[in-house]
Amino acid sequence: MNASNRPDSETREMILRTAATLFFERGYAKTKVMDIARAVGITPAALYWHFASKEDVLFEYLQGAIETFNERIREAIEGIEDPVDRLRTLAIAHTTLQLEFRDQAQAVHSLTYASAELLSALSPERTTLVNQRIRVHVDRIKEIVVAGMAAGLFHARDASTLTFAVLNVCEYSALWFRPEGALSIRDVALANGEFAVRMATGSMSPEQDGEAV
Amino acid sequence: MNASNRPDSETREMILRTAATLFFERGYAKTKVMDIARAVGITPAALYWHFASKEDVLFEYLQGAIETFNERIREAIEGIEDPVDRLRTLAIAHTTLQLEFRDQAQAVHSLTYASAELLSALSPERTTLVNQRIRVHVDRIKEIVVAGMAAGLFHARDASTLTFAVLNVCEYSALWFRPEGALSIRDVALANGEFAVRMATGSMSPEQDGEAV
Repeated sequence: MNASNRPDSETREMILRTAATLFFERGYAKTKVMDIARAVGITPAALYWHFASKEDVLFEYLQGAIETFNERIREAIEGIEDPVDRLRTLAIAHTTLQLEFRDQAQAVHSLTYASAELLSALSPERTTLVNQRIRVHVDRIKEIVVAGMAAGLFHARDASTLTFAVLNVCEYSALWFRPEGALSIRDVALANGEFAVRMATGSMSPEQDGEAV
Repeated sequence: MNASNRPDSETREMILRTAATLFFERGYAKTKVMDIARAVGITPAALYWHFASKEDVLFEYLQGAIETFNERIREAIEGIEDPVDRLRTLAIAHTTLQLEFRDQAQAVHSLTYASAELLSALSPERTTLVNQRIRVHVDRIKEIVVAGMAAGLFHARDASTLTFAVLNVCEYSALWFRPEGALSIRDVALANGEFAVRMATGSMSPEQDGEAV
């Protein structure tokens, strides 16, 4: 199928995927609308038929990517009640999504890392909208942490540090992971699931016990 | 003391600090040599007397910042033999340095995060040199992890995932920490020290035991 008889929705999807790859490879500023159009195999005019501006492409891409991420995490933990299992499953799913995406895009993508660079290209209103979607994931971890603490299964002095520790372990694996290395995506995901549970369920060390309220 | 009778070494130091702040605030590309000179209170010619190019400023700044970081970590864990104490102390020191720097510079600085953006402005040779210094810290964590595993104190399927999990927990606290929030730098540093130890010393869960060699 050539560009001219491709359905609109498919062209739109290709523009988003292609633009994202270019943004990650060259940076947003250095990627021109012309470059995106050429890589997709359409004219700039055709691209402008789908998107009013480069910023529109970036915004729709980011919103979509984070929404997909959140949806996959929601599905992964759906129906799991036990906070320990729920936290482990979330950490495994988060790590897997990060590492699979890295592998596909041949570039490091992360909710926070990539966004920090790309978000600066968005209007303040749109930045707020994207940050709200990122926050959904943070809140999802925190909810599990709070439930685990309330059930006496997790031991932490406060829910926030534990929430972000779990998030950071999963999120930034992508910065270090090498697909050509000895470990598979599954290896790293399982290890991170285990680390998340250990951080949550470990007993208070004497030093921290002494300071606990 | 005005700019004209300031000692050379002090001017050099001011150029590096000022440039770093501007790079973090506006990005490297958008910061001109003229902007750095103006902020320091010297002429561009005077700046060029100290540094041949903007890239030289960036390179010396990054090398110096990472060297200082590595030196502080080395001092913090010096003389501590027990792998558990050593890992906890490293994690506390790492987190403290990250969060204190964030606070000072009013910008997120991190070994890896900032470097990823700024490193792309360096020549390949210099990128390699900076990465070698970053690697010193990774190797320092890994050494503790390997020693702890050899002593039967740490339980992990492989040293790398544990090494990077500890690193990520400490390194990326800076992305989430809000100085105006309820937690102090010390609170977060102690929590991360505890999380690092829990990740290392926790017992293998049945799921992972089953797969262990």
